[in-house]
Amino acid sequence: MIAILITIMVLELHVPHGSDLAALAPLLPVFLTYVLSFVLIAIYWNNHHHLLALTDRVTGGVLWANLHLLFWLSLMPFVTGWMGENHFAALPTALYGVVLLFAGIAYYILEQVIIHGEGANSRLRAAVGGDAKGIISMVLYIAAIPLAFVNQLLSDALYVTVALMWLVPDRRIEARFRQEENGA
Amino acid sequence: MIAILITIMVLELHVPHGSDLAALAPLLPVFLTYVLSFVLIAIYWNNHHHLLALTDRVTGGVLWANLHLLFWLSLMPFVTGWMGENHFAALPTALYGVVLLFAGIAYYILEQVIIHGEGANSRLRAAVGGDAKGIISMVLYIAAIPLAFVNQLLSDALYVTVALMWLVPDRRIEARFRQEENGA
Amino acid sequence: MIAILITIMVLELHVPHGSDLAALAPLLPVFLTYVLSFVLIAIYWNNHHHLLALTDRVTGGVLWANLHLLFWLSLMPFVTGWMGENHFAALPTALYGVVLLFAGIAYYILEQVIIHGEGANSRLRAAVGGDAKGIISMVLYIAAIPLAFVNQLLSDALYVTVALMWLVPDRRIEARFRQEENGA
Amino acid sequence: MIAILITIMVLELHVPHGSDLAALAPLLPVFLTYVLSFVLIAIYWNNHHHLLALTDRVTGGVLWANLHLLFWLSLMPFVTGWMGENHFAALPTALYGVVLLFAGIAYYILEQVIIHGEGANSRLRAAVGGDAKGIISMVLYIAAIPLAFVNQLLSDALYVTVALMWLVPDRRIEARFRQEENGA
Repeated sequence: MIAILITIMVLELHVPHGSDLAALAPLLPVFLTYVLSFVLIAIYWNNHHHLLALTDRVTGGVLWANLHLLFWLSLMPFVTGWMGENHFAALPTALYGVVLLFAGIAYYILEQVIIHGEGANSRLRAAVGGDAKGIISMVLYIAAIPLAFVNQLLSDALYVTVALMWLVPDRRIEARFRQEENGA
Repeated sequence: MIAILITIMVLELHVPHGSDLAALAPLLPVFLTYVLSFVLIAIYWNNHHHLLALTDRVTGGVLWANLHLLFWLSLMPFVTGWMGENHFAALPTALYGVVLLFAGIAYYILEQVIIHGEGANSRLRAAVGGDAKGIISMVLYIAAIPLAFVNQLLSDALYVTVALMWLVPDRRIEARFRQEENGA
Repeated sequence: MIAILITIMVLELHVPHGSDLAALAPLLPVFLTYVLSFVLIAIYWNNHHHLLALTDRVTGGVLWANLHLLFWLSLMPFVTGWMGENHFAALPTALYGVVLLFAGIAYYILEQVIIHGEGANSRLRAAVGGDAKGIISMVLYIAAIPLAFVNQLLSDALYVTVALMWLVPDRRIEARFRQEENGA
Repeated sequence: MIAILITIMVLELHVPHGSDLAALAPLLPVFLTYVLSFVLIAIYWNNHHHLLALTDRVTGGVLWANLHLLFWLSLMPFVTGWMGENHFAALPTALYGVVLLFAGIAYYILEQVIIHGEGANSRLRAAVGGDAKGIISMVLYIAAIPLAFVNQLLSDALYVTVALMWLVPDRRIEARFRQEENGA
């Protein structure tokens, strides 16, 4: 479903009526927001893929925690379109952070539900640990939301910071896979 | 296909033109309807997933019963958008219930077609029994449709009741899986 | 991809502005066209599913014959919207038939490419034979296209006839599966 | 995700208001652009399918190189709509080439990341070699971009040339598959 979401988001990039640079210029903030959202959802896509690969037991609780995450991600095309079309105005920029924050919380809940259901031998628990990177992201989102009413660029800078922080694939989980392959 | 449906539904959340709270406020009923529809479709997604996992024999009849269910679910983005944009007016609220009712009937038919095709040893028959919860949902929808013309809030309350009733995953089917795993 | 296509088609059912029957009434032809297209694409979905299950060798030619079929099916949301919004006017009704005809031809080509590539032992050849039903459908489409300029209802009746003719799942292919299961 | 992309692109073919030929005529350039984009994305779909089938090791780098390719392809519906609606005007025609060029570069990077990660025994390296066809395509795109400001038809001819050049499935990769099947 994350694949569908990241794809339909392009429908918020409305085709302009004119055919010159003047017609394209107002689309620049929409495009930049699109790039940011694409990267942020792509990060979820990759991490979610690794997460499920490390999940041994899918209970009803895991299914609902997963749908809860998808709910918040499903709002990304909407907040992306709203923030982009309003040149990063205060309220849309803050709402963008709210959706990201709740998606982050939902991801954290999903991790905990899986680990809790699997008990002491959970492979995910061993790989993720306390998920410091996830918690730092949420702290940055919490900071970005009120900052949007002071200066939107500060909030945008925080969103970009989170994206850059995650662009490096999760070496803990990758390392875990490699360990298992080597029979460690 | 249910994954695609639940995702494109967000396209009915049209991005508003302004960037302040006044621009966002009229979207509240659309958003609430979106949340309700997301939960109701997610319930179908989960139950449908369990249903197919318990299905041993896919005949032509099962394929068509499944497509019949998908037809009614495919109308959800439309009735969600119509009910939300009209602040839960009478006719859209009733039509929302009509689509839910027919989706419920289609799901029941799908269950029966699978069970009928598999005969006495059907694992699904053992798990689902008479499907009391499905029948109660349909009774509530039948009540909600005329009630929309008396007071829409009553209908909405019934839709929310059905959602809450199903949010608990189907323990009968889960229990059945666990029994089978344990070799019972 | 057919699953995606049949799902996004609902986006052509635009949410009306009013909330009473007068607002809903003009949508009736769009809705009827939607139902017809849903059934016709669902038929392709089922048959295509059976077709690929009987295909043992996927060559480059098969991939392109398949994409050729998907191209014509991808135009269905467009012609569905156009025919529905113009209350089955002559030209849109004819164009609807043109797209169906080319989809039918593309399906026939796909069958032949698969059979040709597999040679004398092709399971598909044994199951499909000369594909009389496919050829009859194409003849009906060829008749429906000019008839749209005489009386659109005649064309619509022919489209419905084809849908009804196919709604019965392809017993030849189903029978073939059963034979194979029984080791015949 | 490429399957989703190629499907939602039809949503850029907006249903016209009238029902006669005069209403349909302005859609011709949009339709032609749609056909061109459908073929170009279908080529990526096929090649990408073969590429992944020859990939033995999916690292974090491969995942991100893949998402980078999907990013550029995700812009295809937008540039397709813009070029089509402006009857192949200069700037939209050039931008269409820019997106194609970056998609081509991203595909090349993806190939190199896979080959680099697999080392000397990479099956992909043996199949693809220096990827002359990919490099020629990029050279043609680089030529087409400035040519759009001289004469758009020249650029369009180059885009069509690339499509025709690739329509023939990649025999090197197909041959490699056949060799492996034969135990060579």
